Amino acid sequence: MKQVVTVRRRALAANDEQADVLRRRFDEAGTLVVNLISSPGSGKTTLLEETVRRLSGDFKLAVIEGDVATENDAGRLRALGVPAHQVLTGGACHLDARQVAGALEVASLLPADILFIENVGNLICPTTYDLGEDCKIVALSVAEGDDKPVKYPAIFARAEIAVITKSDLLPHVRFDLESVRRQVATLNPSGRFLVTSAATGEGIDAWCALLLGRLNAKRSGTSAAGS
Amino acid sequence: MKQVVTVRRRALAANDEQADVLRRRFDEAGTLVVNLISSPGSGKTTLLEETVRRLSGDFKLAVIEGDVATENDAGRLRALGVPAHQVLTGGACHLDARQVAGALEVASLLPADILFIENVGNLICPTTYDLGEDCKIVALSVAEGDDKPVKYPAIFARAEIAVITKSDLLPHVRFDLESVRRQVATLNPSGRFLVTSAATGEGIDAWCALLLGRLNAKRSGTSAAGS
Repeated sequence: MKQVVTVRRRALAANDEQADVLRRRFDEAGTLVVNLISSPGSGKTTLLEETVRRLSGDFKLAVIEGDVATENDAGRLRALGVPAHQVLTGGACHLDARQVAGALEVASLLPADILFIENVGNLICPTTYDLGEDCKIVALSVAEGDDKPVKYPAIFARAEIAVITKSDLLPHVRFDLESVRRQVATLNPSGRFLVTSAATGEGIDAWCALLLGRLNAKRSGTSAAGS
Repeated sequence: MKQVVTVRRRALAANDEQADVLRRRFDEAGTLVVNLISSPGSGKTTLLEETVRRLSGDFKLAVIEGDVATENDAGRLRALGVPAHQVLTGGACHLDARQVAGALEVASLLPADILFIENVGNLICPTTYDLGEDCKIVALSVAEGDDKPVKYPAIFARAEIAVITKSDLLPHVRFDLESVRRQVATLNPSGRFLVTSAATGEGIDAWCALLLGRLNAKRSGTSAAGS
């Protein structure tokens, strides 16, 4: 057990080194990199589809998709005309910096204004792997229940933005939005909190505005890089 | 990377040994042990609450809850009068056999007719850790989307029963039930498929009947043990 922990620590240190190399590359390119993390089925890909529909006319977007299996998600983004590369982890439960570097080697994703990295559907493991991103963003669907931030505190403490998704389902599920807002605010007092629905469009413009604000802040050097 | 794989394999082998010890113990006690796996927020705890409400009058039930943080879930089951022990994994993304053995040491869970092990909310990592259970069962809520079996094939291939939850939300989400049924049948031709809703009660009696059938099969020696 101790040996597992030691080797895992060493692997994480190697990942951090690779992530720092990536971050320098992203900074030089002026690309905002967003690491999008959630449970399976929280609506990450749908949120990206809506983002692409609104922003791809004026901004160069690119996507790296992480999944255990299937090219489905990259296919959905490519169908909207955005360069998207699918990383298949072959059973692994998270993306690592090496896989992101590999994606940049084989796919024409840069230069871009915003590179979205949609991580493997998993609210736990992806949290500890730095991918060289500017920020982690967590998505939580209202169908998942209002106890999730305190049950999965690490990602909610680290995510710059917590995006609540599928708000159109609120009338049909038990989900105390104010309780979730309080949990997130306690875990990350400086984080942003956004309620969205791809079905009704609620909050999607605000989400896009937050992204563009973050891009401008990065380019004007007013925001701390790193995650 | 290679070293990580080697050490992980060794850890898994050690886990399998511990799981075999547990399995012999469960077999001697005549206890059916169910390892319940799903994404966060699929409704595992709610399914267990409904199961307890229906079966605890006639059967001795016990629960081990696995979570990264909070005692919430064990508390919900204990409130129904069922012995429930919370394992806090402290960031780890799955339960292992050592933690189950530890839970049996400190909590009075056996003898029991059925021991439910509600794994950490994660559709990937728990799949590879044998806990000495008789069967793995996967839950998938209709709000998670109908592409999940092919995207997370390992657990759907191994689970004896795939329980679709929150069917009351079907009118409000895009979820092709027949497509999911076909995906699951392809991944595990001998598996059972069940549609349930804790809100309306749909399928819950059938779920309980399946569990009792499995308990009888184990006790009469007509079912292959192991998972």
